[in-house]
Amino acid sequence: MNEIEIFSPASVANVSCGFDVLGFCLEPIGDLMRVVKTENQGVEIGTIKGQDLPKDPKKNVASVAVLALLEKHPSSFGFRIDIHKKIKPGSGIGSSAASAAGAVFAVNELLGAPYSKNELLQFAMAGEAMASGAAHADNLAPVLLGGFTLVRNNATLDVISLPTPKELIATVIHPKIELKTIHARAILKDHIPLKKAVEQWGNLGAFVSALYTEDFELMKRSLEDKVIEPYRAMLIPKFDAIKTAALTAGALGSGISGSGPSIFALSKGEETAQKVAKAMSTIYTSINIEHDVYVSKINTEGIKILKSQ
Amino acid sequence: MNEIEIFSPASVANVSCGFDVLGFCLEPIGDLMRVVKTENQGVEIGTIKGQDLPKDPKKNVASVAVLALLEKHPSSFGFRIDIHKKIKPGSGIGSSAASAAGAVFAVNELLGAPYSKNELLQFAMAGEAMASGAAHADNLAPVLLGGFTLVRNNATLDVISLPTPKELIATVIHPKIELKTIHARAILKDHIPLKKAVEQWGNLGAFVSALYTEDFELMKRSLEDKVIEPYRAMLIPKFDAIKTAALTAGALGSGISGSGPSIFALSKGEETAQKVAKAMSTIYTSINIEHDVYVSKINTEGIKILKSQ
Repeated sequence: MNEIEIFSPASVANVSCGFDVLGFCLEPIGDLMRVVKTENQGVEIGTIKGQDLPKDPKKNVASVAVLALLEKHPSSFGFRIDIHKKIKPGSGIGSSAASAAGAVFAVNELLGAPYSKNELLQFAMAGEAMASGAAHADNLAPVLLGGFTLVRNNATLDVISLPTPKELIATVIHPKIELKTIHARAILKDHIPLKKAVEQWGNLGAFVSALYTEDFELMKRSLEDKVIEPYRAMLIPKFDAIKTAALTAGALGSGISGSGPSIFALSKGEETAQKVAKAMSTIYTSINIEHDVYVSKINTEGIKILKSQ
Repeated sequence: MNEIEIFSPASVANVSCGFDVLGFCLEPIGDLMRVVKTENQGVEIGTIKGQDLPKDPKKNVASVAVLALLEKHPSSFGFRIDIHKKIKPGSGIGSSAASAAGAVFAVNELLGAPYSKNELLQFAMAGEAMASGAAHADNLAPVLLGGFTLVRNNATLDVISLPTPKELIATVIHPKIELKTIHARAILKDHIPLKKAVEQWGNLGAFVSALYTEDFELMKRSLEDKVIEPYRAMLIPKFDAIKTAALTAGALGSGISGSGPSIFALSKGEETAQKVAKAMSTIYTSINIEHDVYVSKINTEGIKILKSQ
């Protein structure tokens, strides 16, 4: 294999009750990446479409992740990465994660797949660290493994796959304002009330159980965030109105996607998810906030190979 | 039915990663209770064996719970409760929970079972509140429902049953010093670092997943408590040594049972659990601390009816 083209999907992290640990993978939105073997060792960034990203391999998330991989697994040849960036940086749906995970996934394939998807996390983390100021695997894990994932421990990258109920459909609305993870993180307090923490882990434990038992009513009760959302909601225009609209339209839950400004909802069934999309969209339209809105199955596959030769 | 005799079991709450939300039910240790219908309305405490407990119905955990039930469900007859208290109060294995849950369970049976086990929680909470200063359902839930339980929300008593892997065996050691829940709670900080909270909910989510998938290695990694244990461990003689001995003997995890001073361990298989019991016991024996030690299957049934007529 000398060349590979992949689709590296967007993802939703935190999912209300699982700040920094829970995430799921989206289907319709993602970057297109092509990685080609080159004679010269190392990594270069080729063409970049869709966004204005650094061409310096030491400053681009994708190549930084690949450099981390190559440090552990030297190669006699090199790689050129072409990126069609469709996920807007700072949108809250794992833009940097898609770049970092996609790049190491593609290079791993060209190297004959010496690493498992789980092992690729450590390299993708290098890219993610550069992008967000703190390396978290909560977006990387669902992109690489697909479906719902839980980061048990971020330091040891102990990541597990959770089941994905088929009827669960995501709606994501992206108001076109940029919110950098680093700023959304700065607003958080470094200590939280024990009482709220207990409620949060009660909800997370219940949500994990509900994914196994496909108990949608329990999911509904568990999709709650009293720890992070109260702080970050103020960074997102009309957050409360959008969330209320989603719930009124029948969503099981709604909250900030990653560090925002995108807002996600989860619904039982496509029909409800479409209604939720419409209800969310109406609010931004009424106040002239430009936005994209997506309805998406949970992508259980993660990164897809489009072509290889 | 005019008379019922029950076995109301001990339980382990918190289970390292699930402070105030997670619990499981024990098999060999529990109180014996007999409840008899009386002509006069209301509740009286009859004989008490094993411990010196209040006979005033307004001061006894069992009768306080029953009074809460009768307030919502008045009865033309009354009840006398005889208690053979085998679980020592302040031992950390749900002594008050066994009294409160056992009493409402028995009275509910004598009333023709108007309430489900889940509904009985609200009444048992009244007894638990009197005993511990703060009403938590993390011991009550496993006693009433059996197996592993998760309190998603303590205020709404949203409690769910989790699966119980058959090979999972508990070891519990009880050093004979009394530690009141109210004191063990006072030592805790009311705010915790967000970073530690994230680790805790990562562990709880993973442990819940591991109960479904019977992934014992994941249970092992998840049975960790960096939030509560560092404070409460100092209240328990030789806690660190006991825990280390349990892990060295092959336990998957070990921690404080409830608010202590009992220490629990979970092991895969009876043989390991017995080795763990011996290792834990050796330490207390060597420093002349009187103690009981139990090896127990996870009791999936909860309260047992021994006799009714």
